[in-house]
Amino acid sequence: MAKHVIGIDLGGTETKIGIVQEDGKIIKKKMIPTKVLDGRITVVTRIGEAVRELLLESGMNSSDVIGIGVGSPGSIDHETGTVLFSPNLPDWSGFGLAEMLEKISGIKTFIENDANSFILGEWAFGEFKGSQHMLGLTLGTGVGGGVITHGMLMTGSMGYGGELGHTVVEPGGPLCGCGSHGCLESLASATAIVNMAREFSKRFPESLIFAKPEITAKAVFDSAREGDHAATIVVERATRALATAIGNYIHVFNPEHIIIGGGISKAGDLLIDGIQRKMPEYVMPSFNGTYSITLSKLVENAGIKGAASIVFYRIS
Amino acid sequence: MAKHVIGIDLGGTETKIGIVQEDGKIIKKKMIPTKVLDGRITVVTRIGEAVRELLLESGMNSSDVIGIGVGSPGSIDHETGTVLFSPNLPDWSGFGLAEMLEKISGIKTFIENDANSFILGEWAFGEFKGSQHMLGLTLGTGVGGGVITHGMLMTGSMGYGGELGHTVVEPGGPLCGCGSHGCLESLASATAIVNMAREFSKRFPESLIFAKPEITAKAVFDSAREGDHAATIVVERATRALATAIGNYIHVFNPEHIIIGGGISKAGDLLIDGIQRKMPEYVMPSFNGTYSITLSKLVENAGIKGAASIVFYRIS
Repeated sequence: MAKHVIGIDLGGTETKIGIVQEDGKIIKKKMIPTKVLDGRITVVTRIGEAVRELLLESGMNSSDVIGIGVGSPGSIDHETGTVLFSPNLPDWSGFGLAEMLEKISGIKTFIENDANSFILGEWAFGEFKGSQHMLGLTLGTGVGGGVITHGMLMTGSMGYGGELGHTVVEPGGPLCGCGSHGCLESLASATAIVNMAREFSKRFPESLIFAKPEITAKAVFDSAREGDHAATIVVERATRALATAIGNYIHVFNPEHIIIGGGISKAGDLLIDGIQRKMPEYVMPSFNGTYSITLSKLVENAGIKGAASIVFYRIS
Repeated sequence: MAKHVIGIDLGGTETKIGIVQEDGKIIKKKMIPTKVLDGRITVVTRIGEAVRELLLESGMNSSDVIGIGVGSPGSIDHETGTVLFSPNLPDWSGFGLAEMLEKISGIKTFIENDANSFILGEWAFGEFKGSQHMLGLTLGTGVGGGVITHGMLMTGSMGYGGELGHTVVEPGGPLCGCGSHGCLESLASATAIVNMAREFSKRFPESLIFAKPEITAKAVFDSAREGDHAATIVVERATRALATAIGNYIHVFNPEHIIIGGGISKAGDLLIDGIQRKMPEYVMPSFNGTYSITLSKLVENAGIKGAASIVFYRIS
């Protein structure tokens, strides 16, 4: 039987679980509410039950699976499988998630931060799979980063590395959740895009943004696509922040591929073109032709596949 | 006999050559003018002769040496030992420096960019030798960078990586030699510090800077130390650029040690204190206590020792 892995995309509101083949094909998957408020023991027990059900429904048992991979928000100590700190999982600090899930399921369990899991998913199953030098940005509520350099997931001395979203690209810019000003996250996350749009309500009260049922990042991109001026300014500022940051990463990592995922990546061409157009301002000519900037093509199942890839990466 | 290595610090104006022991002790060294205008063949032949003399004077021959390491300015392809591009070595583009030196000397030769060589020197012989996660900044005419992550010299897909000096820290800042604006190099190199001081000649004509025999980076730091206002503004701007950049690298690499070398590092406390004081503005509290920022203690012989360490790194 081919190698199978369980991938668990642990989110603040919902958790997606899937059985994944070595070639990335998802045999079966399910989604359960995370219900963080029930407490971590209950949450992990429920996940363990869902894993058992999924195996049962697929006519498999735990010995048919070589491991469980969990992509989790927050700072993760992947050596010990512990959640160090996660804003979306309050009270999980210091929790030995891997150990508990391993005990419940009887399956070896590995954990990574969800942005690291994203780039591992690209490395294992994405358009440029197998590339030894690639980095990923997940643009969602926050901005996550993951780096593969020389074929290795770069996590730094304590496992805190790869925080690409907290590099400053606009000194004195908006206050970031981390306490600094002008981090990439404060300019290119969904939260940031919504904030920048709201701040324009007095200057551009007629903007299409404010005619949408709700002010979301999607509403801003849609308005920009319809030619709205305020929305275009916001998109330009966000894509300039991204171009500045990506230019920096190119000089630092000399990557082959920069891959963008997360909810904001659905803005598609408007996002990529906005970034690409500005790159010559931020990249030395000697780097021309050394890198690509693309949107992730794993889309819908990126979370499960990324989580599964943690096992393939750690075991391979 | 203990392992010996030849370290060659190839500079635009002078070249330093030394025989280095495994513990970093320099047995014998000499300095020769590089005389770049004589052409690359003549230059390398002269270096080969100097190596032969040095061995002879030490009662050694080529078989007593396990390798030659060359720290060279510019972009280096360390796989093939070729100089890709170097502003200080015009007409060396595409030159197989390692191959030729190997042929002349009969000794296996390795080349690295001088900033990579700097951090390898710290890894092999510095205050924090053996650290698996450290990065170096060389503040001289330009700003060079070298990164060791997970015990490995990080050079990226084509060997161009680690260009920490060309990350943007002040968008719209001074024009950098690379064509971008507000790179670290455009704010914290000796050239940048002199430029920023000169630009103040109309606003602060009475500044101590302009009473010095020559406007150099040292003159600016000396004036700041004497309480000069214009010089202090320049030093504050340079150290703010450094703090911003180092904050970014800390989030990206989660290093244990950041080590600063190069001519500007002679400014000592004025430089380090200026950076340290600003770090809380640029680093997430969760990184507190995870890193140190210090000046290189290898000083005088950093170039030769760094070059020698290339061999120990590649062969170990």
